[in-house]
Amino acid sequence: MNQENIRSRVRIGVIGGSRAKADALTQAHEVGRLIAGRGAILVCGGLAGVMEEAARGAHSAGGLTIGILPGMRPAEANPHIDVALATGLGYTRNSLVTMNADVLIAIDGAYGNLSEISSGRIYGKTVIGLGSWEIEGVVRAATPEEAVRLAWEAATAG
Amino acid sequence: MNQENIRSRVRIGVIGGSRAKADALTQAHEVGRLIAGRGAILVCGGLAGVMEEAARGAHSAGGLTIGILPGMRPAEANPHIDVALATGLGYTRNSLVTMNADVLIAIDGAYGNLSEISSGRIYGKTVIGLGSWEIEGVVRAATPEEAVRLAWEAATAG
Amino acid sequence: MNQENIRSRVRIGVIGGSRAKADALTQAHEVGRLIAGRGAILVCGGLAGVMEEAARGAHSAGGLTIGILPGMRPAEANPHIDVALATGLGYTRNSLVTMNADVLIAIDGAYGNLSEISSGRIYGKTVIGLGSWEIEGVVRAATPEEAVRLAWEAATAG
Amino acid sequence: MNQENIRSRVRIGVIGGSRAKADALTQAHEVGRLIAGRGAILVCGGLAGVMEEAARGAHSAGGLTIGILPGMRPAEANPHIDVALATGLGYTRNSLVTMNADVLIAIDGAYGNLSEISSGRIYGKTVIGLGSWEIEGVVRAATPEEAVRLAWEAATAG
Repeated sequence: MNQENIRSRVRIGVIGGSRAKADALTQAHEVGRLIAGRGAILVCGGLAGVMEEAARGAHSAGGLTIGILPGMRPAEANPHIDVALATGLGYTRNSLVTMNADVLIAIDGAYGNLSEISSGRIYGKTVIGLGSWEIEGVVRAATPEEAVRLAWEAATAG
Repeated sequence: MNQENIRSRVRIGVIGGSRAKADALTQAHEVGRLIAGRGAILVCGGLAGVMEEAARGAHSAGGLTIGILPGMRPAEANPHIDVALATGLGYTRNSLVTMNADVLIAIDGAYGNLSEISSGRIYGKTVIGLGSWEIEGVVRAATPEEAVRLAWEAATAG
Repeated sequence: MNQENIRSRVRIGVIGGSRAKADALTQAHEVGRLIAGRGAILVCGGLAGVMEEAARGAHSAGGLTIGILPGMRPAEANPHIDVALATGLGYTRNSLVTMNADVLIAIDGAYGNLSEISSGRIYGKTVIGLGSWEIEGVVRAATPEEAVRLAWEAATAG
Repeated sequence: MNQENIRSRVRIGVIGGSRAKADALTQAHEVGRLIAGRGAILVCGGLAGVMEEAARGAHSAGGLTIGILPGMRPAEANPHIDVALATGLGYTRNSLVTMNADVLIAIDGAYGNLSEISSGRIYGKTVIGLGSWEIEGVVRAATPEEAVRLAWEAATAG
């Protein structure tokens, strides 16, 4: 394992709820797989639903995954999280997910998702939306491929 | 002073940015004044702009104001905050503002506002919008009077 | 009620566990009473044990009390808290208790108490100990009277 | 890289200040090296001093390091941190460092260290002290070897 490698890799955050429609879960898996394919690290909330499918997808392509958890125990992370970080902050941890990603992909999404979109925008991060909230400042993507490509471009620009 | 009174009063959160248009500031002042007129406590982020004008308005009507601050020093609160609470959480404190209000009124608003709207919705709070984000789950009000009336009704229902 | 008055009052934090020995509870009540007698605001963790007895004591002398809670609901505060602030931070909220007091009085105390003593010291606050941890940087007091006098002097010095 | 491996490894937290005496820095380096030698992950606060030396030591033996930072930017981590987690919580992040380690080794130490010792004890973690606070609940070690051996035993017991 090359640690320098871990530190220098792009981090792409995938935000989405623990309960999501089948379509969103399929998209999340594909997004995770493509993130790993780019050599980027997946950052997410570490729980079920979109978070778990994205991590499962990343693992299917040999990627590394970070989960930033609401609870106090790293063991609460889904089985596809490599680095589980407990915060004990509850929903307030959403702000930490966005703080730790270079760029965000929002999938599906209820209000938890919206809180991450808005905190990502507060921190000046590009947010790509895939079937998510259509609001100002969210760049819409039609497919997982487009979402990951746009995210990669935003993270590596400049 | 009757402390029991403080504990039992309705708390109305006013969310809005530290930089806002003149119209929004005028509305914030009026909203604050009307909140105090109802005998409710104003909860806000404690800084400038919408937060300060709402607090000033509340004070103009003899109201009590709580400011939940991003920084580590209570003294950072604007001069119209009675109970200044430092959190040291930065923008992450937005979640605490909504946690401590029975109902929320969003005025104007950039992404900070949206993060409070969404965290308010996560916690199941009614959110009234006054020239704010027009998204699902935000109840639109046309005037400060309507906003405070709707907020009061939501907080005292059931 | 005079709001300016609230903002300008000294804030004395009382730190101690939710389970404590009878002696410590008696001391907490007396400390709270004396804090209110000085016209200072009591800041505490808002729950049971030392926190509740200190708040009860403060109320017995007409004082104002602030409780900074680990949970997400202001209603979790003990009945003698006037301004209940929910944080949803769990034990991590200990840091916020000390951040919001001008000076601290530690009563009895297990590790929760020690975490507040140390975070108080990090923030440069004077910590008075009453039957608490005897470590460097904690000023020992023999009685509630002495503790509140020392706290008052520290808060109003310079 | 074997991700399953990352998730299942023991995590040993090293706590200590950003400014420390030469002796403490030497010990921190050796502790880090020995942690990596056991195949454990080093968790620390990610900044300078004891944190950086422990991470440098871990890297010298091919170990993996996690840094949980007070600020809002992962880039603030020292160069020997592989997984840098920004929290934006300031000193309040101390609680998250202890939450994310199976066992803690305290080196040298001022009040920041004491806050981590006490929060570690709140969470029921074993705390090994190496020239640190000599208080109830801290297991004293005389050398880095003894400290890491005791930490390893505590983390793998039961």
